[in-house]
This record gives sequence, structure tokens and C-alpha cells, in this order.
Amino acid sequence: MPRPLHEPVDAALIPRFAGHSTFMRLPAVASAEGLDVAILGIPWDGGTTNRAGARHGPREVRNQSSLMRRVHHVTGIAPYERLAVADIGDLVVQPIDLMAALRQIEDGIAQVCAKGALPLSVGGDHLTTLPVLRAIHKADPGHGPLGLVQFDAHSDTNDSYFGDNPYTHGTPFRRAIEEGILDPRRMVQIGIRGSVYAADEHQWARDQGVRIIHIEEFARRGPDDVMAEVRALMGDAPAYVTFDIDGIDPSMAPGTGTPEIGGFTTREAQAMLRGLAGLNIVGADVVEVSPPFDIGGITALTGATVLFELLCVLAAGRAGQG
Amino acid sequence: MPRPLHEPVDAALIPRFAGHSTFMRLPAVASAEGLDVAILGIPWDGGTTNRAGARHGPREVRNQSSLMRRVHHVTGIAPYERLAVADIGDLVVQPIDLMAALRQIEDGIAQVCAKGALPLSVGGDHLTTLPVLRAIHKADPGHGPLGLVQFDAHSDTNDSYFGDNPYTHGTPFRRAIEEGILDPRRMVQIGIRGSVYAADEHQWARDQGVRIIHIEEFARRGPDDVMAEVRALMGDAPAYVTFDIDGIDPSMAPGTGTPEIGGFTTREAQAMLRGLAGLNIVGADVVEVSPPFDIGGITALTGATVLFELLCVLAAGRAGQG
Amino acid sequence: MPRPLHEPVDAALIPRFAGHSTFMRLPAVASAEGLDVAILGIPWDGGTTNRAGARHGPREVRNQSSLMRRVHHVTGIAPYERLAVADIGDLVVQPIDLMAALRQIEDGIAQVCAKGALPLSVGGDHLTTLPVLRAIHKADPGHGPLGLVQFDAHSDTNDSYFGDNPYTHGTPFRRAIEEGILDPRRMVQIGIRGSVYAADEHQWARDQGVRIIHIEEFARRGPDDVMAEVRALMGDAPAYVTFDIDGIDPSMAPGTGTPEIGGFTTREAQAMLRGLAGLNIVGADVVEVSPPFDIGGITALTGATVLFELLCVLAAGRAGQG
Amino acid sequence: MPRPLHEPVDAALIPRFAGHSTFMRLPAVASAEGLDVAILGIPWDGGTTNRAGARHGPREVRNQSSLMRRVHHVTGIAPYERLAVADIGDLVVQPIDLMAALRQIEDGIAQVCAKGALPLSVGGDHLTTLPVLRAIHKADPGHGPLGLVQFDAHSDTNDSYFGDNPYTHGTPFRRAIEEGILDPRRMVQIGIRGSVYAADEHQWARDQGVRIIHIEEFARRGPDDVMAEVRALMGDAPAYVTFDIDGIDPSMAPGTGTPEIGGFTTREAQAMLRGLAGLNIVGADVVEVSPPFDIGGITALTGATVLFELLCVLAAGRAGQG
Amino acid sequence: MPRPLHEPVDAALIPRFAGHSTFMRLPAVASAEGLDVAILGIPWDGGTTNRAGARHGPREVRNQSSLMRRVHHVTGIAPYERLAVADIGDLVVQPIDLMAALRQIEDGIAQVCAKGALPLSVGGDHLTTLPVLRAIHKADPGHGPLGLVQFDAHSDTNDSYFGDNPYTHGTPFRRAIEEGILDPRRMVQIGIRGSVYAADEHQWARDQGVRIIHIEEFARRGPDDVMAEVRALMGDAPAYVTFDIDGIDPSMAPGTGTPEIGGFTTREAQAMLRGLAGLNIVGADVVEVSPPFDIGGITALTGATVLFELLCVLAAGRAGQG
Amino acid sequence: MPRPLHEPVDAALIPRFAGHSTFMRLPAVASAEGLDVAILGIPWDGGTTNRAGARHGPREVRNQSSLMRRVHHVTGIAPYERLAVADIGDLVVQPIDLMAALRQIEDGIAQVCAKGALPLSVGGDHLTTLPVLRAIHKADPGHGPLGLVQFDAHSDTNDSYFGDNPYTHGTPFRRAIEEGILDPRRMVQIGIRGSVYAADEHQWARDQGVRIIHIEEFARRGPDDVMAEVRALMGDAPAYVTFDIDGIDPSMAPGTGTPEIGGFTTREAQAMLRGLAGLNIVGADVVEVSPPFDIGGITALTGATVLFELLCVLAAGRAGQG
Repeated sequence: MPRPLHEPVDAALIPRFAGHSTFMRLPAVASAEGLDVAILGIPWDGGTTNRAGARHGPREVRNQSSLMRRVHHVTGIAPYERLAVADIGDLVVQPIDLMAALRQIEDGIAQVCAKGALPLSVGGDHLTTLPVLRAIHKADPGHGPLGLVQFDAHSDTNDSYFGDNPYTHGTPFRRAIEEGILDPRRMVQIGIRGSVYAADEHQWARDQGVRIIHIEEFARRGPDDVMAEVRALMGDAPAYVTFDIDGIDPSMAPGTGTPEIGGFTTREAQAMLRGLAGLNIVGADVVEVSPPFDIGGITALTGATVLFELLCVLAAGRAGQG
Repeated sequence: MPRPLHEPVDAALIPRFAGHSTFMRLPAVASAEGLDVAILGIPWDGGTTNRAGARHGPREVRNQSSLMRRVHHVTGIAPYERLAVADIGDLVVQPIDLMAALRQIEDGIAQVCAKGALPLSVGGDHLTTLPVLRAIHKADPGHGPLGLVQFDAHSDTNDSYFGDNPYTHGTPFRRAIEEGILDPRRMVQIGIRGSVYAADEHQWARDQGVRIIHIEEFARRGPDDVMAEVRALMGDAPAYVTFDIDGIDPSMAPGTGTPEIGGFTTREAQAMLRGLAGLNIVGADVVEVSPPFDIGGITALTGATVLFELLCVLAAGRAGQG
Repeated sequence: MPRPLHEPVDAALIPRFAGHSTFMRLPAVASAEGLDVAILGIPWDGGTTNRAGARHGPREVRNQSSLMRRVHHVTGIAPYERLAVADIGDLVVQPIDLMAALRQIEDGIAQVCAKGALPLSVGGDHLTTLPVLRAIHKADPGHGPLGLVQFDAHSDTNDSYFGDNPYTHGTPFRRAIEEGILDPRRMVQIGIRGSVYAADEHQWARDQGVRIIHIEEFARRGPDDVMAEVRALMGDAPAYVTFDIDGIDPSMAPGTGTPEIGGFTTREAQAMLRGLAGLNIVGADVVEVSPPFDIGGITALTGATVLFELLCVLAAGRAGQG
Repeated sequence: MPRPLHEPVDAALIPRFAGHSTFMRLPAVASAEGLDVAILGIPWDGGTTNRAGARHGPREVRNQSSLMRRVHHVTGIAPYERLAVADIGDLVVQPIDLMAALRQIEDGIAQVCAKGALPLSVGGDHLTTLPVLRAIHKADPGHGPLGLVQFDAHSDTNDSYFGDNPYTHGTPFRRAIEEGILDPRRMVQIGIRGSVYAADEHQWARDQGVRIIHIEEFARRGPDDVMAEVRALMGDAPAYVTFDIDGIDPSMAPGTGTPEIGGFTTREAQAMLRGLAGLNIVGADVVEVSPPFDIGGITALTGATVLFELLCVLAAGRAGQG
Repeated sequence: MPRPLHEPVDAALIPRFAGHSTFMRLPAVASAEGLDVAILGIPWDGGTTNRAGARHGPREVRNQSSLMRRVHHVTGIAPYERLAVADIGDLVVQPIDLMAALRQIEDGIAQVCAKGALPLSVGGDHLTTLPVLRAIHKADPGHGPLGLVQFDAHSDTNDSYFGDNPYTHGTPFRRAIEEGILDPRRMVQIGIRGSVYAADEHQWARDQGVRIIHIEEFARRGPDDVMAEVRALMGDAPAYVTFDIDGIDPSMAPGTGTPEIGGFTTREAQAMLRGLAGLNIVGADVVEVSPPFDIGGITALTGATVLFELLCVLAAGRAGQG
Repeated sequence: MPRPLHEPVDAALIPRFAGHSTFMRLPAVASAEGLDVAILGIPWDGGTTNRAGARHGPREVRNQSSLMRRVHHVTGIAPYERLAVADIGDLVVQPIDLMAALRQIEDGIAQVCAKGALPLSVGGDHLTTLPVLRAIHKADPGHGPLGLVQFDAHSDTNDSYFGDNPYTHGTPFRRAIEEGILDPRRMVQIGIRGSVYAADEHQWARDQGVRIIHIEEFARRGPDDVMAEVRALMGDAPAYVTFDIDGIDPSMAPGTGTPEIGGFTTREAQAMLRGLAGLNIVGADVVEVSPPFDIGGITALTGATVLFELLCVLAAGRAGQG
């Protein structure tokens, strides 16, 4: 039985600046019950090693998502006609105790999964992706370690920071590999760049099988060629998509904690996102939008548009399965 | 039978930056049904003669109101224990056709009044107050012309602008007097200042009996003395309170369309607002918060705090009546 | 008899930050009398459906145009040696009554045309282009419906907004086609992108014959190929050029009301503008520069540079005709 | 024979954001011919020891002065009915060679004086006041050394900076005393504050007879008492008024090169400026408005309002003499 | 034997914008060895319940402190002639693990105390004051529980947040009382304001004997009267001074995590700080300066000036003891 | 004997926001003694013809350089393992007297050269490069006139400004050619664009043999081809590299005095910088970073990254020589 669909508020009837601010101007609902995709915020940045602020990401991405409309201009996909989607609000995560926060995030996502909905979340710093992955993995351990498509300036596979802290936004994917949640041979990181701590910083990841595509390789090959490789790597098995906004150039996404010049243009990012169509995506997120460092809301707008592109990809997948 | 009360989200449990943004972190409800006070936004600035932007006021006042807590630190009033209050969202007002917009606002407020709730609104430019007054007046014509307590840098009693436009944010109170909605002898305007178009610009208002207290007179007398006069003028008859944020000094409320230096400090404004306790208030608003011209959200924060002060005054009155 | 030429103030003699601010530091003159090209501002944004502010566009484009010099660095064109150009100020347009404003704009442009000058205007929102086109069309109805080269993120051929408002910045070109001012088969829109309200949103325009070039097609083909098509479409017949600043990427033009990521780079925009040389241009504009949303004046600078490129194209045409 | 009067553009007819930007929306005229008061800009900051930017002051004060109207709301003075006033533009001053710049400023002011007009200038840094004073003094040496009323956070009577540079914005009044232009016994400096280089930093000035009123003394006595002393000191002899915007608190005038917390409120500043009425003022200026460090134009707005207050004081004097 | 004195760089010789940025342009030294007062930064905000960013406080206060000079303009105190003062850098505190961070801060301050220097620190959020107090108390337990003079908008004596987190920037002084570090009967909190969580929120503190002076009481009595009470309360016994920048009004100190309108003016704050002279101060701090939320550096400038005032008070005390 | 190497502070141990701010978090040392490369600031912008502010460049580039790590992610070069590098602070240059400032800069660089270190400086405006070149040339006149690789929007080979000022940031390379310091036939300027004062503005430079590569030629050919030409032009002879940040597009480097749209992307700039490897570089600089016009520090971040790229190129050269 098809689930009831939700429509966003129509900006041709009610101005974009009016009304409560929700993701995509969708209804705010209390839980993921009855949803195919639950959009939610994870306002937490306790794993941040430099400039905090991603805790404010969900609120501003909501605000800027009022600029989104209903149909994708290239693919023609109308996600709200295919999927039951709504805004289930923000997870309750306290900002003081890191380990407790990780549990709160995992529990929150577990409830989404328990309702049969796919979590599409807005961070938060990149450490939030670790408990999200844990919850998705636990919800259906049958599908084995997940694939990962990661758009990012940084590999985030370091071991520890500031002595022996194993949990920071620079370490989530190392932890996820160690915990057996991710399959490193089905992990691809695109857009990696910027000076590194040590010449062998990425060696551990490479040794596990992670495919690192530096921005220079990307620039040489272009989005189509790169995404063909990504699709081949992922195949039909379950994969998670994580989009760190710092993958995009700081001129287009200045509001982030660890900017690196020379990144993707938004046009390139959009081309890659559209290239995800057909993957078996079990969850996705946009992270590291940090409003205190944003300029005129441009990063939040970029984040909201990435969110819409992800939603359309999910809807494309659903159509294929329907 | 007492109406069910609503509680704001507690910032000691859920961080202020989390969750959907509503006025005072109160529940968002669909209508004024069951409410004593309905907080709502009027995102419209079509009457603005210079710098538009107050259309974005409700959204940012909502965001900054997340900094408010539950009990007034001076009076000890806990408004949510005395009044059923919630956020009923924004009125739907289109930004293109001025006359249609005035009708939409009046209709929206009429629905609030019809539920027996008192409207506490956030503008929007000052012209929004005219249709609000129309609706309140029509809802209970028995109480006759209303009194008005106006905190403002400008009298807003001009006749017309740009030729013969009778409806702008510089004219609402002239229209309301002409329409018999306001009783000019029970109107007081506090904080008026700034150069004027003509030496006799305020003569019409004075001729009707409006009491204009320039900022210089206010500075000489202080809040207590001025508010004693205000209370004497208003007596027990119904009065409306309108707070134009440009009454406050631009250093403390830069985000507004027509700033005038030399205004109230927020401390003075708060003292005056507390002096409203005991009046028979039938509605109130905060207007002219213009986020595109704001700096760091300080004007929206000031607006949110004024809103909380107004709510506590309404609650004080309710207690007196209870 | 050649008309007397005007020279901009020379920044190597008088610093750019000194003196009254005019377009290109040209003389401010009272009317279009004796001019080949009249640069003027249309400070009005009453057709804006979301974020107003383009009313402040002319002032800031004037300020930033102080950075322009006298000779085009690629084409070598020295426009002020070929054309009599000056700044005739802003049209007087009141911000309250939309229908009256449209008449004021049309009348103002009619006066420019009556002097035999070509109007080169700076908006204002995109609805300003409609009365400009009306005036140009009426001034010389003999040339029939005009061609249009439109650089833009949005087609602006919707039918109505907020119920039944036929005049907004999302509808001008539908109205102009309906009114017989534009020839849809000689209309080209370049850079269109962003999510749409409905899958068939552009169908009406396409049905009339409008050529819509999405940003993705543009990115594939490049400026040279696209402009060859544009020139073929326009031929020798009269054409109007309208440049909505939101055609450019928001990182390079953030100060606009309806930003869409993934737009033109300024380099691409400049290449296209230079590709206009040789067209029979009867008027041109730059619209939707919205200073309250701008960042460091970059959008106004981009707008000023577009204005200079347009002026050089006009001068190129003049030289060809001379 | 009375000189022809000029009227500012009326904001109730033409919106404030429209038209070329001039001081007070007055006509831009080519010279001081026929004027009682010539408002002009001095866009130069070559004497700045820390943060440059006052070179951009005139342009932004012009922009913000569009918020001024025609009649003073307290005194009822309508300056444009009493005085022929216009905007004569900016002096041409090059930014590279300090000594040449000082000569250019002096020459420019000399031309104003030669027309019989009183110069009311907008800086520029405080060193600009020195050549202004030189020109005024030379224009009518008969009146002897001038009195000075200086609103400022700093005494600006240091001897030299960075070795042996005698001309910086920290030294103009020492030079003017040494040159016999100012009478130190008729000099008063109000609002002085902030840490000092040395315990005896102000001793030289005090030894000459300069009256220094620190902000603490001002706060104790209030504007009325202080201005009574100022008027007594100045008497009927010619005096110059210089208003360094950094006299005002940085929360109300952040856009300046050397901010010091704890300054005047604008309300206090306005009270003092009104207390100048009756003095024999031979020239006045507002200096050190530095737009690159301003926030939302608030400092330029404050500067524009100070300019209007000064103009009304000049008009009050004229009325007394008429 | 007197300790060798350090001089700040002289801004009349080397411009303020030049050179490495240190507190007050003092030498950067490796440890507190040989110092009377060690100025240091504590770049940590892990106890923040809402908007993080105070971690960046030390860097920006350093930058803005380049505007300070050498002698106090009211008291004539020249601190660098009386005290050996230098900038010992920032404590190394990692941002991930709260409990480890508290230990790092305590250890760092302990090293300062072990050298016989008095710590004058710049936060960081207000929780940093707890480990500072622990270290000072342990360094000389003989002096018993300390007195506390706290300038603040908030009492910071709550019990816990987000469930059971005992350590946040809203709880440090409750913990310090419980630990016997502070003597609640010698604690005074000045400037408290803003809505509260519960009517009895401050009851625990009052029950212990803490003296809470709300902003309203302060406004009524003025700085002199309030500081007389403070001095009487403190007597000759050791006291710590903590200055939360949010005590100051948000118009003058917007860059902070939990702004409350209606606060101290800087002029009032300076008057109070000068009233501390003569107390037996064993340490002091300025906290909660949060640069990501600051505007034009004004909060950091205010923080730097408070730091200078505190230093002069310490120097005044030293002179009295010498 | 190898010189002792210096290591930057490790951000995985001490957070980036902590500690004194130095270039690359390297030690601050008192002189160039013992260094291979001395990084230094030249905080002076007295040659600026429009918007000053580059005097603040060194401080903000230092701040943003805290985001740099230790190893180049493409070349694998670890500069601190190959070269002795440190931050020797800023040259002492007074802002008032231009000719004295040029001498101070030349003297400061001469001292660096005298220690055998290569100067890598951060401006300051582009006129600072002239005295730097003078000092390098004098230090070793044996190598003859230097080659120059200039990344820039402007040729900076004009003759004079504002009458007869020969020294501005628009003239340094004309002066250097005239003085025999630069060999015009080994000079290449890349990225030149923007309208020009006169059609023959660049003729003098071309006549001397300077190779000007406009942005349009660059865009056509790409970084690899252009840099091959550059390397061929430079050969093995000594060359200086100057990077004017305005060569980069204003969306990526808005904080500069004379922005021109249509510039390099940072990705293109990085590709070119890496193409410098192998040249015989005798000095390098990054100039025209102007923090007062910057947005969110992005220009300073770009400047810091350019600095790191230059350092890696110098290290690459050193390795080749080792």
C-alpha cells in the first residue's frame, strides 16, 4: 500500500519567507512513521578540531531550503510524487559529553530505521556520520559492510587527535572501517586536497583499499568519468552517501570549519550527484555547514541544493524499484 | 474551564539551536483555537517607503526568541503558567498587491479574534498595524475607539506619500483615526525624533489630541514618569500596544528601514514595557525588524525580548483579572 | 553632425573614491538630449516575490562602476570615443503602487527614446524590463516584435503568482510575448537552471518558440558555440539584451533575490557578452542586483562590469554602422 | 540681496534610495559661488597612523544623508529656508604625497572662502582639519587666532610619530597652535579618553591653555553644564567646530580608525551640538568616518546626522544675525 | 629584588598593525618565570550550551589589544612600570574531551602560580574559570575559600544541563562553592538579568549567601554605590575577579554566546572596574568573547580594554603593597 | 653544515586556534640568521591609489596560515624537512612618508639577504615589491637584472599617477625596469585583465619586451602550456616571483583593493604555482591581501595557501640543488 505523500508549500502561493521553516517547506512531523525518506537535522559539532559552528547547520539549511522548488530541472524527477518525505525535526543531542552524544545520535537514527524510513540527515560535523552508519548497519546487518561515496576535501581516516582522542571529525571513517560497518574496498573519497600532516597520512586508508580521488585527478577526468568509476565500485550493494560541504570550493561554501581552496565548483558537484542515480543508497547526509562562518547564507543554500539533489537521486532509485 | 497551557522547549534539556524554530520555542499550532494569546508573524513590508526587508522579520525573531526562557527575572511572572500561548504561524500575505495584502492581514487577524484569542504579532512594516487594528475593532465594536501606546521614532500620522498613496508605513495611525478605530485623545507616541519633512508635520496629529513625547522629553523625565502619564491616559479602556523597533537606538536595533540616532536604550525600553502592567490590552505587536539590514541578529534579539516583555505584561493583566 | 562626447573622470588624476558617484564616473546630465546611449537607474523592486532589495541596485552599481576604466582590454574598443554617453540619473518610480510604477517606468523610457537615445538601464527587479520593452516598442513600432537575448537563471515566463497577480518578476516575458512586443521565435534564454515548480513550467514558453538553453547545455557547448547560435537567431533585426545578474553563480553574484547555484562564471559571462557584437541592439539592461544581500560589493562590481561590456558592444555596433 | 536657496529632494516624492547621492540630497553644484554654506568632502586619510579608510567617508556620509529631512525636530530650524546650501563635491586630493595633499586641501578650502561661503566639510582623517584651518585663517587674518570646539576621544596634540613625522592625524592641533592659527586658551576638547602613551602626554596642550574635558568629567556634569562652559570660553569671537566621530562610542560609531570604548552616546552628542547655537562659527567638519570598518552604515548615518545638526546650528546663527 | 620589567611595543614608533600579535603588544615569553602578572589565553569553549566560539577569544583579544597604550588616562597608573607583565601564550587545551580539558587548564594555571605570578587570563567560556579557581586555591590553600567579584548577565550557579552534565558554562560557581573554593558569603554577581528557567533559579545561590545585584538594582544605584558594597564585602581577604563579557550590553559586546539586552554600558563597566582598586586580587579573567559572533571586532576591543583596566587595578594594588 | 630546521606547531596536538599567530605556525625568530627562507610581513600600503588596507595583510595571512599543514598533498614535498624556515616578523615601516617607507623596506630586506636567507614576504601593496627587488639586486649584483614571474590582474607598469607621483602600486615594475633591476625580456605577467586607461597603456612594457598573458589567452591555453612558456623564458637565471592576490577572481579573493572579475580560479593558480618548480628563484611575495575588504578571511586563506605553495616550490628547488 503506498504511503501518503507530502507536498511542500508552494512558493507561488505562499512567499518563501513566510511560515515555519522546515526542510524543503515540507510538513514537520513527529516521527518517521509512514515515510520513505525522513529528513532530519543533527545539530552537533562536538567532534570539531578547529572552528565549531556546524551545530547551527540544520537551522540555516532549513531556512535556505525555502528556495527549493518541486521538480528537478534536468532529470524531471518530482521527488514528492514518488516518495513520502517529511521533516522529522532535529535529533536531541546534548553538546557537552561526546560519548553520550554519539549514543543519542545512534539511537535517534535507529528509530528512523525502525520505521522503515531512509535517513537523509543534515549535520553537524562529520563525526555525526559515524553513529548514523552504526544505526543503519545495526538496523539491517544482513546487508554486510556498506559502501561509501564521500565528497570531501579530507579523508577523515586519521587515527586520533590531541593525544588519544579516537573520536573527532577527522577520524569517523577509520572507526567505521575498524568496526566492520564500512567495506573499505567499496569506499571512494572524491575531492581530497590540501596540505597534509604527514606524507603517509592516507596510507592506512589506501592499505585497506579505500579509493582516494584527489581534486587534481578529478579536475583531469571530469565528473562523468569519475562517477562511472564510482558506480562500478558500488555496484548494486548498499551504499551510503556523505557530502562534506568542504568538498566544494570555499568561495562557494565558505561556511565550514576547515576550508581548503581549489575545490569542486557547485556545477561539478551537481554533475556528480546526478551521477549517483541507480545506486542502492541506504542513507545520505550533508555535513559541516557552519553558519557562524557562512557569508550571506551561500553555504547553507549550497547545502540545501545538495540535499535536494540527493533527494532526487533517492527518488530516481525508488522509481527504478517501483 | 481553563484552557490547556503550552510549555516552551526547555533549553536546559534541548539546546537552543536544535529543533524547529518557533516563537519562544512554543508549539506550532494550526489556529488560535483554545489560546489566550496567539503569537503570529505578518511577513509583509509593502508599505515601506525606503528600505524593505521587514517581510523577513518573523523568521528571524523566531530564531532569536530561542534565547528566551520562561520566567521574567524582575516581575517573576511565568507567562506560560497563566496563559495558553502558542505560535500559530505566519499570516498568508502576498507581496505584490498592497490593497489585497491589507485585506489578507485583516482577515487573518479576524480569525484569531473569532477564536477569542488576543493577537500578539510580529511584523512586517508598520502599515501592518492598520489592518490588525481594523480586525480587532470589528471583532468587538462595543468597546469603541481604542487607545494606543506607540513606541516609535516616527509618528506615522502623515497623510500620503509619492503623490497620493494613502497607505504606507508612514500613515497608518492617521488612517486609523479617520476610520474611527483609534481614539486620538487616548493615543500616546513615545520616542519621536529625527528631522521632519515640515515644521507642522505633527500638527494634524496634535490637533486630534494625540500626545507626542519626543525622545528629549523622555530623556528628561525618565521611564517611570512617562509611563505614569501613559497609564493615566489609557485608564481601564481597551488599548493596543505597538512597538516599532526603530524607537530603540540604531546601535541596539540597526536592522530597521528608517533608523534615527539618539533613541531609547533597551534598558529604557524594558522599563517602559514593564510599566504597561495593568492596562487593558487588546492586542500588541513588534514591527519593523528588518533582517537584511540587521547585524549579527541583534535587532531580532531585541525584538524577541520585547515580545517576551509584552507577553509578561499580558500575563500580568490576566492574573489581575483571574 | 556628431554629438558631443563625454569623458569619465580619469582615476589616474582623481582617485576612484572621490567625487559624486555616477555610472562609469560619467557626467550626470538632466536628460537624454544629445546622447547616443543614456545610462539610467530604475530603483524599483515591487515585482519581487521573495527577497526585495534591487531598488538599491542603481546606487551601488554606480559606486562600483568607479572601478571601470575607459578602454576594453580585449577588443580595444574605447566606447566614449565612439558614443555620446552620460548618466541621466534614476527614473522616478514610487515603491507603493505596482501599476503606477509600471507606468512611471514606461514614461521615463519613452522620454529617453524620444530623444533618440538608446536606453541602457540598471534595475531594479526583472519586472522593470517589461515597461522598458513597452516604451521601446512604442517608440518605433515599425520594427515589429523585438528579439531578446536573456542571460538568466530563470525563464520568467510564468503566468501569475499568489493567486492572480499577472505582474511579478517571474512573469515579464510572458506578458511581453502576449502583448506582441517580443517575437518568441527570436528569444533565447541562457543559463536557466534550478528546481522548477512543475515539470511543464517552461512548456508555454517553448510552445511559443522560445529557445531555452539550460546551464548544462551551456557548460557542454561553451560560450562561443552558444553565441553563434544566438547571433544566428537574432540576425539583423532589432533585439534587446537583458542580463539578470542571477544568471551568474551566487559565489560571484550573491547579492540577488533568487540565487541558484551552478551558474555562469564571470569569465563565461564576459565571453558571451563579447559575442553580442554585431547585433542590432535597441536597448539593454542589468537587473536584480540587490545590495542588501550583497557581500563586499562583489555583485555590484560584477553588474558594473557587465554594464561596461554592454556599452562596448553597443559601441562596437555603432562603429560598424558609422 | 539674498542668495538663492536650494531645496533637498523631498523623500515623500522621490524615494530616498533613488537619484544621485549628494549631501542631504541637495543639488550638486560646481563651486561655492552664491552659497552661504558649502558642504564638501575631503576624501583623504594619508595622516592615519593605524587603520586607513576615512578616504571613503564622504561617499558613505552622502549615501546615509539621504535619510535626513528638512526641519530640525527640536529647534524647528529649517536650514534650507535660511541659508543657501549645496554640495560642491569633493576636493581633489591625491593619496600618495602627504605634503602635496595638505596643499591641495588648503587650496580647495581657500576657494570656498574666496566665494564668501562657510566650509562645512566631511573627512577624511583628522589631519585634514589642519589645512582647512590654515585656509580659513588666511582668508580673513583679521579675526586673529580661532577658537576651537573639538568633540573627540583623542587630543590630537602630539608632537610627532614614527620618528619625526610632524603631520599625522594625532598632531594637527599642536601644529595649528604653533602656527598661530588656533588660540589655545579658546580651545576645548570634549570626550577625551583611552589609555595614553605617557603620563604627561597632554601636558603640552594644557600648558598652552587648552581645556581638556575627559569623558569622565563629561559624564559627571552632563551636556548642558559642559556646553555652558564651552559657550563662555568661545564668547563672540570666531570659532571652528570639529567633530571626530570617534568621540562617540564605538557601538554607535564603529567605523573609525582608532575606537575607544566608553564614549558619548549619540543622544549626548546631539544635546551638545544643539548647545553650540549662538557661537560665531567660521567653519565646521565631521571627520574620521571610515566606511571599511563601519557596520551597516551606522557610523555614516551618525556622521550625516551630526552634519545636519551642525547645519542647523549654522542656520540658527544666521537667523540671529539676520 | 625587583623583577625585570617588560615594555609593550610603542605604537608611536611601530604601527599598531605591525608585528606579532600579543596581549598589549607585550613580549611573548615561554613561562611565567620572573613575572608578577602572567597574561594568558585559554582557548576552550567545551562548556558552552548554545553558541560556541569563545575558543577563538584569545587570538582576537590579542589583536584588538594592539589599540591599548601604556598609561591609564584617569588614574595615571602606568602598569608596566610597576609590574613585570608578559604574554605567556595560550594554555594547551584540547577541544574534544571535557574532563581532560578541565585538567589541562588546572595544570596550566598551577604552573603559573608555582612561579609566583598572578594569572590574568582571557577565555574561553565561563567554565574555564572553574579550573583556574581550583589551581589558585590549591596553590595557596592557606588563604581559605576565595571571594569572587563577578560581572555577568548570568549567575552561572545552575546545577546541571542536558540531563546530568555537571560541568557547563552555566554551572562553574555552584561547583566552586560545593568544592569549598569560593566563599559564597563573599561572592557578588553584578548585572544579572534576562529571563530565567524557573522562578527559584537563583535560590540555591542566595541560600548559600551569594549577593546577586540585578541590572535593575545596578541602574538605580550606580557604579559608585555598588562598588562600595563590593569592597565592603570583599574586605582584605583574597578575591578573584571574573568578567563575563556578556555583562556588557550586546550592542557593545555582541560577540558572545548568550547575549541579553539591557546590560552595562562600557562606561559603567569601566567605572566599576576602577572601583576594584585596593582589593586583594589573586587572579582575574575576561571570558566569553566569541569572535565568530563578533561584529567588527568591537567585543574583542571591549575585552581588551577590560583586560587593561584589570591590569591597572592589579598595578594599583601592587603600588599600595610596595 | 646543515642549518637547524624548524617545525610548525602540529594541529593534531595543539588546536589551530591556540597560541601566538605566526606564519605557518612556525617559530617567531628575531632575525634571518641561520635560515634558508625567511618569511616576513611588510605591513604597508602607502602606494595604494584606491582602497587602502593591505597594511593589515600580514596579520590576517598569519592567522589563516594556521590552517596549513606540513606536507604538500600533490608533490609530497615536506618543506620543513628541506629548508630552515621561520617567521622573522614584520618589517618596521611607517605609514606616513612614502619615500622613507621605501627605504625602510629596502633596508629590512637587505638584512635578510645579508644573512644568506631568501626573503618570502607578505605585503602590503604591490609597491612593496620595488624596494624588495632593489635589496635583492644589490645583495648580489653579479647575477644581473632579474627575471620576473608576475601573477596579477594588472601590469603595474604605468608611469605616474595623480600628476607626477612616480611611486604607486601601479608603477613598480616600470621603475624596476628603468633602474636595471629587472630584465624586461625575462618578465612575464599572467592574468592581466580589466578595462584600461588607454589603448596603448601596455605599449611601453611590450616595447621593453615584457610578455603579457591576458586572462583570455590563459583561459584558452591552460596552466600547463602557459607555465611551459614561463619556464622557457626564465631558464636557469635568477628570477623573482610576485603573486598579486588580485590575479585570482574576486569571488575567491575579494579582499583586495582593485578587484577585476573574470580572474584565475584558485585551482588554476595552484596548478601554475606548482609549475614554477625548477626555476632559480631568488625571492617571492604575496601582495595586496587587504583584510578590511575581505569576507570571512577567504582572501587571507588564499594568500596563506599561495604562500605554502611558494614555499614548497622553493623547497623543491633546494632539493634539486642538494
